[in-house]
Amino acid sequence: MKLVRYGEPGLEKPGLIDGDGALRDLSAHVNDITGAALSDAELDRLRALDTATLPLVTGSPRMGACVAGIGKFMCIGLNYSDHAAETGSPIPEHPILFMKATSAVVGPDDTVLIPRNSTAVDYEVELGVVIGTPAKYVTEAEALTHVAGYCIVNDVSERDFQNKLTGQWTKGKSCDTFGPIGPWLVTRDEVENPQELSMALDVNGERRQTGNTSTMIFTVAQIISHLSQLFTLHPGDVIATGTPPGVGLGIKPQPVFLNAGDRMELTIEGLGRQTQILEQDA
Amino acid sequence: MKLVRYGEPGLEKPGLIDGDGALRDLSAHVNDITGAALSDAELDRLRALDTATLPLVTGSPRMGACVAGIGKFMCIGLNYSDHAAETGSPIPEHPILFMKATSAVVGPDDTVLIPRNSTAVDYEVELGVVIGTPAKYVTEAEALTHVAGYCIVNDVSERDFQNKLTGQWTKGKSCDTFGPIGPWLVTRDEVENPQELSMALDVNGERRQTGNTSTMIFTVAQIISHLSQLFTLHPGDVIATGTPPGVGLGIKPQPVFLNAGDRMELTIEGLGRQTQILEQDA
Repeated sequence: MKLVRYGEPGLEKPGLIDGDGALRDLSAHVNDITGAALSDAELDRLRALDTATLPLVTGSPRMGACVAGIGKFMCIGLNYSDHAAETGSPIPEHPILFMKATSAVVGPDDTVLIPRNSTAVDYEVELGVVIGTPAKYVTEAEALTHVAGYCIVNDVSERDFQNKLTGQWTKGKSCDTFGPIGPWLVTRDEVENPQELSMALDVNGERRQTGNTSTMIFTVAQIISHLSQLFTLHPGDVIATGTPPGVGLGIKPQPVFLNAGDRMELTIEGLGRQTQILEQDA
Repeated sequence: MKLVRYGEPGLEKPGLIDGDGALRDLSAHVNDITGAALSDAELDRLRALDTATLPLVTGSPRMGACVAGIGKFMCIGLNYSDHAAETGSPIPEHPILFMKATSAVVGPDDTVLIPRNSTAVDYEVELGVVIGTPAKYVTEAEALTHVAGYCIVNDVSERDFQNKLTGQWTKGKSCDTFGPIGPWLVTRDEVENPQELSMALDVNGERRQTGNTSTMIFTVAQIISHLSQLFTLHPGDVIATGTPPGVGLGIKPQPVFLNAGDRMELTIEGLGRQTQILEQDA
């Protein structure tokens, strides 16, 4: 299934994308796409619906983040060997974890705001993992059974806030609108191998990032197992699993950052497409 | 006002502590103590109630975290000059920010669990600041008007997870039960000067931490103003503002960490008392 949330911010309704690519309303069958809707039993219940009987949604409504009520928005840093190389960082021994504020979450095609006093906004296309059932002390072998599904995340970053404010990375990752998620939450049964997904990001139509989840240093299963040794992963939690090479920070001879009016387009195989325009915050 | 949440985990009711120190039920007047209840207008509405007419709660119910639905649980690192010195760290140029997972939040007297494979659990008594109204790009002068009130936070930490797992600090700060908050949310009108509160922490009756918020490197107002340049602070967000000297990590000639059965007691002037017993996680 491809689950979505559509409508104006704060008023999103649950929906799904049917086999013909059409948006259908799920409001009669689930209140919202939150952790409570993501257990195997709940997903099976939705899967059993005859999609042809669900109301077709007309027009092109705004898409919201494909999951609501996110408790933890976790990000893994430097998780592609080639990206670690471009930033001049060593290969980490364990997954690097930082948190992105959940207040940064926006829809996949919403405007991304450049904060005041910012000159170093950057993009990062990432495979997002949405947790479906509580995971604590799980092994790598059982880890993926706790996944509800996958989505695109743009881990938008302000490199000076991230690296020059004597904070931890979270400062440059948590600005308002820095967390586009979606458009689709693709349930795990439709993602044959999460470690073999191609991904790309364009800025103003120019290819900047090209990658494949096959070059992750830590696999999705390894990340889930590792994090679950530290704390419980709850339904609706999201993990952004790191970005492949090509970020603006890594461009030679000098970094190239984003400006107001720039357009980012992100794709991951089977997970749809995001498009965001940047705008200067007032 | 001293606002509280009492009852079994997940079933807490809102209450307040009256002038005689008795617990009274607020259920008839507010659904829960969340961000929505913390605006100046909402707090004024509760303040106008005749406390003598509120039902007295009998017995000694468990206390929950004094605020529910926390969006961001932010922590400031190394914010006391004497604590920075004991850890051998330089005085930071800006507030150091890391996030604590909201899934770590527990009541002020709940059991704290030592995670599997953990040998370095440590305590940190901290002044907690609860946001009452949205704050974005606010000046230091206006910052405190966005505060609903203050509470005690124990920023429980696993030093090896924090420092030896090639993560950011959040790894050692986010374990389940590592975020006791409360018992009281003391509204800001009752805290004359948040930069003049004495605080202490005992382990098994032995004084370990003694401090005063007067020795903070960055004041509460400075922290709020700084963070609000990065992102919006929302009602119900909590900021733990750093810990004074005396943490286990800083004990000479070698660190002393917590063990199952140990008892932590935390006090901050005017904000009540927390008591937690440690237990090994299964």
